[in-house]
Amino acid sequence: MSGSVDNIKYPLILGHEGAGIVESVGEGVKKVKPGDKVIPLSLPQCGKCLLCLNPKSNICEKSDFGKYSGLMLDNTSRFTCKGKLIYHFVRTSTFTEYTVLDEISVAKIDDNAPLDKVCLISCGFSTGYGSAVKIAKVEPGSTCAVFGLGGVGLSGIIGCKAAGASRIIGVDTNSKKFTAAKNVGATECINPNDYKEPVHEVLTKMTGLGTDYSLEFVGDTNVMLSALLSTNFASGTTVIVGLAHYTAKMNFNPMVLLTGRTLKGGLLGGCKSKDIPKLVSDLMAKKFDLDGLITHKMPLAKINEAYDVLTKGESLRTILMMSSCE
Amino acid sequence: MSGSVDNIKYPLILGHEGAGIVESVGEGVKKVKPGDKVIPLSLPQCGKCLLCLNPKSNICEKSDFGKYSGLMLDNTSRFTCKGKLIYHFVRTSTFTEYTVLDEISVAKIDDNAPLDKVCLISCGFSTGYGSAVKIAKVEPGSTCAVFGLGGVGLSGIIGCKAAGASRIIGVDTNSKKFTAAKNVGATECINPNDYKEPVHEVLTKMTGLGTDYSLEFVGDTNVMLSALLSTNFASGTTVIVGLAHYTAKMNFNPMVLLTGRTLKGGLLGGCKSKDIPKLVSDLMAKKFDLDGLITHKMPLAKINEAYDVLTKGESLRTILMMSSCE
Repeated sequence: MSGSVDNIKYPLILGHEGAGIVESVGEGVKKVKPGDKVIPLSLPQCGKCLLCLNPKSNICEKSDFGKYSGLMLDNTSRFTCKGKLIYHFVRTSTFTEYTVLDEISVAKIDDNAPLDKVCLISCGFSTGYGSAVKIAKVEPGSTCAVFGLGGVGLSGIIGCKAAGASRIIGVDTNSKKFTAAKNVGATECINPNDYKEPVHEVLTKMTGLGTDYSLEFVGDTNVMLSALLSTNFASGTTVIVGLAHYTAKMNFNPMVLLTGRTLKGGLLGGCKSKDIPKLVSDLMAKKFDLDGLITHKMPLAKINEAYDVLTKGESLRTILMMSSCE
Repeated sequence: MSGSVDNIKYPLILGHEGAGIVESVGEGVKKVKPGDKVIPLSLPQCGKCLLCLNPKSNICEKSDFGKYSGLMLDNTSRFTCKGKLIYHFVRTSTFTEYTVLDEISVAKIDDNAPLDKVCLISCGFSTGYGSAVKIAKVEPGSTCAVFGLGGVGLSGIIGCKAAGASRIIGVDTNSKKFTAAKNVGATECINPNDYKEPVHEVLTKMTGLGTDYSLEFVGDTNVMLSALLSTNFASGTTVIVGLAHYTAKMNFNPMVLLTGRTLKGGLLGGCKSKDIPKLVSDLMAKKFDLDGLITHKMPLAKINEAYDVLTKGESLRTILMMSSCE
């Protein structure tokens, strides 16, 4: 929509987050049957390639992420509009009532899962939560800063809290988001615009030596650098999650890392496809809840209005539910 | 010497790597007594500050690294030349027959340790070895690339081998260094000048999906970027070790990390002061050897000649011993 991702083929049906019910299956499909509840996987796992067999990776060689062929694994599109081919998006295309997915791109979930909540687990929640728990590996008693308090950032806070962080500092230029952040676990929040000094200096003063972990959910390379500099120079870990423009660059003197810092990134919070049904079960077992992330439920027909609310930050918690089943 | 480090006070006695014998101790010193063999610690540990108590950090708040006061902890210099004050370097200043160190800046080592070998453990060897073993945490069966085949890089190879790496690819623009690299454990070596493609593409082709670990021992931000790009995009870890000019910048689109890479750095291979006597004991127990790193032994009076040999790369293995005890 914004043009920040390179190599995308147009026109296409966007959307990669969702939850649904299998309507029918093609020949040879064994993993799911009609009626099953499923979550679409923007990062599928074939289970056979070197990346799938690598416990540290969650990107399958058959993923369309980064390649953006816009086609299914058999090189076809299943969408047309007035006779013209429409491309798929990362083999999910969830902004539609019916979509066609490869077998490796769906995860079967619990029959009783509430679709209007677990859709968040297909990307936003898992990305934020996993970035804290699986990528940063936040430790009990640690101090964390979370940059960007949208839905993914709030999920990062939920992850930091679940991992036992004792101090979770939310950072956003929109102070209206602080209440929601505190509701899900932030112990304090700061607005960089309220200070003369750069925000990394503010955080270093607040924490003595800098944070143990900083998580970036904005997609701006300057914010990424702030996150990096706000960590303890001798031991801090920064996880970048936000999607920057494909031409943007991070820019720093390597001494920033040489003193002992770690900078890493990850998609979908480092979750493999097998982690998705597990997170659904964890939700149903009340290990965490998603209510703090949901402010609006709107029908698919109002998708542009939904995006307006999201973009303007009028939705304090900024994750929207767009369901054709309302 | 080169001006690549900022904030240094001149004139000073350089040198931070060495091994020696305690000649005398000041009042209240308990850790060592005259006659003890010791290694100077450019990164001391007071054992009491927040950084010392942090198991992930090896930089003490009392370290002079980065501050470069050029003075001892009591704010005095103990060197003069013709009545003029001479500064210390990171509270070690080992390019001299006699130096004065704070108690926290020495580690007592085994009485039988060979000083003309274990001096390497005070920085070069520990930096390379620890970067593989403690910072990258190289795993058995993994594939590693080591950029820069000087003494520290060779120590990195020794570390990768000790950690059980099955493939260790040495990278240097001076092919004369390949024999020494193979002698300490490199399974193959490549010279970037022998290829038309960028070296990260060469390494990606050689390894299928990129290396599991890339270690950079050159101090050049372009080489750091090559190291980063040569790792598996979905799971690779890069450790930067070389000291770049203080004005140099690393520059990359964050998507390089977002797919699942990790970039980290560390000083002294992440070793704390307590690790130094342990490495000396490991050497004496023949868990590794340092002979492959030593090509020249020259007296202190020939220090400039020694640096010439080092800089020109005429010493294939480029770690020089400069001892006044010859």
